[in-house]
Amino acid sequence: MNVNGTPFRTVWWESGRVRMIDQPLLPHQFRIVDMPTYEHTALAIRAMTVRGAGAIGATGALGMAQAAVAAPEAEFHAHVAHAANHLRETRPTAQNLFAGIDFVLRAIEAEGSDVARSREAAVAAANAFADDDAESCRRIGELGAPIVSERRRVSTHCNAGWLAFVDWGSALSPIYSARRAGADVFVWVDETRPRQQGSQLTAWELGQEGVPHAVIADNATGHYMARGEIDVVIVGSDRIAANGDVANKIGTYTSALAAAANGIPFYVAAPTTTIARHTATGADIPIEERGDDEVLYAWGWSDDGRFMRVRTAPVTSRGRNPAFDVTPAALIAGIITEKGIVPASVEGIASVAR
Amino acid sequence: MNVNGTPFRTVWWESGRVRMIDQPLLPHQFRIVDMPTYEHTALAIRAMTVRGAGAIGATGALGMAQAAVAAPEAEFHAHVAHAANHLRETRPTAQNLFAGIDFVLRAIEAEGSDVARSREAAVAAANAFADDDAESCRRIGELGAPIVSERRRVSTHCNAGWLAFVDWGSALSPIYSARRAGADVFVWVDETRPRQQGSQLTAWELGQEGVPHAVIADNATGHYMARGEIDVVIVGSDRIAANGDVANKIGTYTSALAAAANGIPFYVAAPTTTIARHTATGADIPIEERGDDEVLYAWGWSDDGRFMRVRTAPVTSRGRNPAFDVTPAALIAGIITEKGIVPASVEGIASVAR
Repeated sequence: MNVNGTPFRTVWWESGRVRMIDQPLLPHQFRIVDMPTYEHTALAIRAMTVRGAGAIGATGALGMAQAAVAAPEAEFHAHVAHAANHLRETRPTAQNLFAGIDFVLRAIEAEGSDVARSREAAVAAANAFADDDAESCRRIGELGAPIVSERRRVSTHCNAGWLAFVDWGSALSPIYSARRAGADVFVWVDETRPRQQGSQLTAWELGQEGVPHAVIADNATGHYMARGEIDVVIVGSDRIAANGDVANKIGTYTSALAAAANGIPFYVAAPTTTIARHTATGADIPIEERGDDEVLYAWGWSDDGRFMRVRTAPVTSRGRNPAFDVTPAALIAGIITEKGIVPASVEGIASVAR
Repeated sequence: MNVNGTPFRTVWWESGRVRMIDQPLLPHQFRIVDMPTYEHTALAIRAMTVRGAGAIGATGALGMAQAAVAAPEAEFHAHVAHAANHLRETRPTAQNLFAGIDFVLRAIEAEGSDVARSREAAVAAANAFADDDAESCRRIGELGAPIVSERRRVSTHCNAGWLAFVDWGSALSPIYSARRAGADVFVWVDETRPRQQGSQLTAWELGQEGVPHAVIADNATGHYMARGEIDVVIVGSDRIAANGDVANKIGTYTSALAAAANGIPFYVAAPTTTIARHTATGADIPIEERGDDEVLYAWGWSDDGRFMRVRTAPVTSRGRNPAFDVTPAALIAGIITEKGIVPASVEGIASVAR
């Protein structure tokens, strides 16, 4: 997608280096950082320089390619295996990270003992893995665009945009696709406390693509639904259960309830890699609870140009900070995947699960 | 209510001075400020040193008493009338402010041309007006306490505590009352973006009274309801229509929807002065839209001890910022007033309206 009029991906391979957008600086600074070795790339994943399932998976794959290129011919496979473990440990619960690493490992193994060809295969596989993520997201946009063109005023929560993937994004992809086709789109951006990915990332993405939007407090979404100013909701997903229940950023459930109460269709957009076939229902999805500092403080850019935090709550108060919630399948109008838009049901999910 | 173990009101009369808690400094500093003249008191209302309908009304009344005491015998009534206009202009939409000013004016007028008695009557009336606010809130607590004692884990939104009134508060009063009677209460405090009155004021009040609580992102309330960790919701109100629809801080409506979806009773606590008898339904309540800086920034206390703002959204993005929303009567289990707990219906409201 565009940044200052120039197309970018979140992460890419360039002459043996892994280059990426330094996401924690957004929206206040746009900077590209270079990772010269797989160890640097691993550090970037751990430090959340890159975040979002799709983007992390591609970064893991590209890191594996770096490891294969750099591994000495003697003990090549031992070095590669060591690198894979090192990369895996950076975010031990990131399914897409493991998928990216394993995809490259399999390409290497297919070449047997030919180290030169293994290196070439690793680089090709890593780039193919990244391209596949971008292509899935592009296709989600293509399939979802008619929903946006018909229902012009879209609400979204958190950041399920291209910054969370290699390109295009999931929930925002239909918006970009419809907008590029000339649709008159407007996006209501939930700021998404506590981490504010909506105001920090989604608003920035939309601005760079020239999509009209307004940032609102998460509290205001229901109000604008009741006032008839929101036509459709599209959100992303962190995990989709076999019955169509969806885990996504905290607050998604409340948005779905408000949409249902006001007769507004609520869509989830996600590549089929998000489907957890062996998770029966939403009740089986563990909900990560993060440190309460995220709730007790807010982060941003000071008037004198520093990225910093301010404390809102009393020093004696504590908080609770669940990262995700579960939206029951019954509240979901459909799931927009790269293989088609399917109902949030056992049959619908089974028809597209990989 | 208690601050560091000592009972305080938000605003009170002391030897001709109006003293009040400097609320914008909370929760980071607790300071009492003195207003030696009615002009200072007017400035304090305008600067929001004091906020909340009940507290503003009492401050206006006390300011009128100061004006009566200071007005010269020659042209006494002209001076008093001038002061009333001056105080009214500080917050031109605050109904309670006008009520407080008019209450004192009527007491003065009842004394005719006797200036000495008029002055005494003004001071007595102002204190009676403040006492009446405190007593209404205390009574709301007494009537609502059994709800809290039975349903232990309470969710609340914004600050409808004693800081918004003279003492006790509306939504928090049943909590204080139940707690003082020994109930094992726990309060889920919505931080209440964008102005964060929950994390800044409600959490502070609860902490000072020793009430166990946790601050959560507004996004997390629905999640904890779905998990069965919230037993009842009690919120305040800015205006109650004749049919029982309730205007309150933005996000109240979403909380009510989530409560309904999870079978959790949703109560509104408010003195009967909040009822707008000539407002037929919630659709007739104008919703104030405030400047978007409140959404694009967050305010708090920096690690180096300054109260400041940080910007979260890109400088090129704009926001929308409705201050209130309307919760339909059908979502409300009951309205806790100082005259009794009544259904949110035409009949219920009529039975307690002043």
